[in-house]
Amino acid sequence: MKLMRVGPIGHETPALLDKDGKIRDLSGHVADIGGVAISPECLGKLAALDHSSLPEISADSRIGACVAGTGKFICIGLNFSDHAAETGATVPPEPVIFMKATSAICGPNDDVLIPRGSEKTDWEVELGVVIGKTAKYVSEADAMDYVAGYCVSHDVSERAFQTERAGQWTKGKSCDTFGPIGPWLVTKDEIADPQNLKMWLTVNGETMQNGSSTTMVYGVAHVVSYLSQFMSLHPGDVISTGTPPGVGLGMKPPRFLKAGDVVELGIEGLGTQKQTFIADV
Amino acid sequence: MKLMRVGPIGHETPALLDKDGKIRDLSGHVADIGGVAISPECLGKLAALDHSSLPEISADSRIGACVAGTGKFICIGLNFSDHAAETGATVPPEPVIFMKATSAICGPNDDVLIPRGSEKTDWEVELGVVIGKTAKYVSEADAMDYVAGYCVSHDVSERAFQTERAGQWTKGKSCDTFGPIGPWLVTKDEIADPQNLKMWLTVNGETMQNGSSTTMVYGVAHVVSYLSQFMSLHPGDVISTGTPPGVGLGMKPPRFLKAGDVVELGIEGLGTQKQTFIADV
Repeated sequence: MKLMRVGPIGHETPALLDKDGKIRDLSGHVADIGGVAISPECLGKLAALDHSSLPEISADSRIGACVAGTGKFICIGLNFSDHAAETGATVPPEPVIFMKATSAICGPNDDVLIPRGSEKTDWEVELGVVIGKTAKYVSEADAMDYVAGYCVSHDVSERAFQTERAGQWTKGKSCDTFGPIGPWLVTKDEIADPQNLKMWLTVNGETMQNGSSTTMVYGVAHVVSYLSQFMSLHPGDVISTGTPPGVGLGMKPPRFLKAGDVVELGIEGLGTQKQTFIADV
Repeated sequence: MKLMRVGPIGHETPALLDKDGKIRDLSGHVADIGGVAISPECLGKLAALDHSSLPEISADSRIGACVAGTGKFICIGLNFSDHAAETGATVPPEPVIFMKATSAICGPNDDVLIPRGSEKTDWEVELGVVIGKTAKYVSEADAMDYVAGYCVSHDVSERAFQTERAGQWTKGKSCDTFGPIGPWLVTKDEIADPQNLKMWLTVNGETMQNGSSTTMVYGVAHVVSYLSQFMSLHPGDVISTGTPPGVGLGMKPPRFLKAGDVVELGIEGLGTQKQTFIADV
């Protein structure tokens, strides 16, 4: 299934994209896409519905973030061997984790705000993993049982805030609208191999990132198991698993986003996002 | 007012401690302590109630975290000049910020779980600041308008996870139960000067931290204003503003917590916490 949330910011309706590409209203069946609604049991019930009989929602509705009630937005740093190389870093001996503020989450096509004082706003297409069941101390072998599905995650980053403003990356990762997720939460049954998905990103039509999750160092199952050794993961938590090469910081000279730039990104099987970057005045 | 939440984990009732030290039920007036209930307007209405006429709740009820629905749990690192000195660090040129997972939040007297594999679980008494109104790009002069009040915050930390396990402190700060907050959200009108509060912590009765918020480098108003330049702060967000000297890591030799240890901590005017540390099996 391709689960989604459509409607005005803060008033999204749970929905799904049916096999004919129509948006169908799920509000008669779940309160929202998140929490118990994305448990294995509830996903099974939603899959068993006759989707064609659900009320149709206009195709031009705004699309919201694909998950509601995210308690943790956890990112894995330097998790692509080729991206680590471009930033001059070595692959870390175990996953580097940092947090993005959940208040940064927005819809996949919403405008992204360039924060006041920003000169180094950068892009990062990432594979998002959405947790469906509480996970604590789970093994890598069992880890996928706790995953509801996947989404496109844009880990928008302000490099000066991240690395030049007194330590800890979260400062450059948490600005409002720096976390577009969606358009869909694609349930894991639709993705045969999360470690073999094409990932791409363009700025004003020019390809910047053109990679694949095959170069991900610590894969989805490993990351879920690893994180669960440090903290419980809960339904609706999102893990953004790192970016392939081609970020602005890695270019010579570095290149960053300015107001008016349009960024499009996508991951094979997970849909696409398109954002206009605007000044946060 | 001293607002609080009492009852079983996940089923707490909003309450307040009245001037006679009795716990009074607020569930007839607010759904919980958090969100709109801690806005300036709602706090004004709660203050105007006849507290002695509210239903009394048993004094031996479990006390939960003093705020519900916290979206961000933001910490300020190395924010006491004397603590920075004991860890061998210099005072940073601007606030160091990192995130604690909100899933780490627990009640002030709940058991704290020492994670599997932990050998360096440490203590940190901190002044918690609770946001009451959405703050974005606010000046230091206006910052206190966005603060609902204060609480004791125990920033429990696993030092090996924090600094020896591949970068970014959040890994050692986010374990389940590593964030006791409370017993009360004390509204700001009760605290004449947040930069002049005694702060203390004992382990098995032995004083480890005995400091004051006077040595806080970046004060509450500065921190709220500073954070709001990077991200919107929302009602219920908690900022833990850093710890005075006396953490286990700073001792020679370093000293860490083991199962069975009892930690008590408090801040002048904000009440006390008491936790037994147990192994997370």
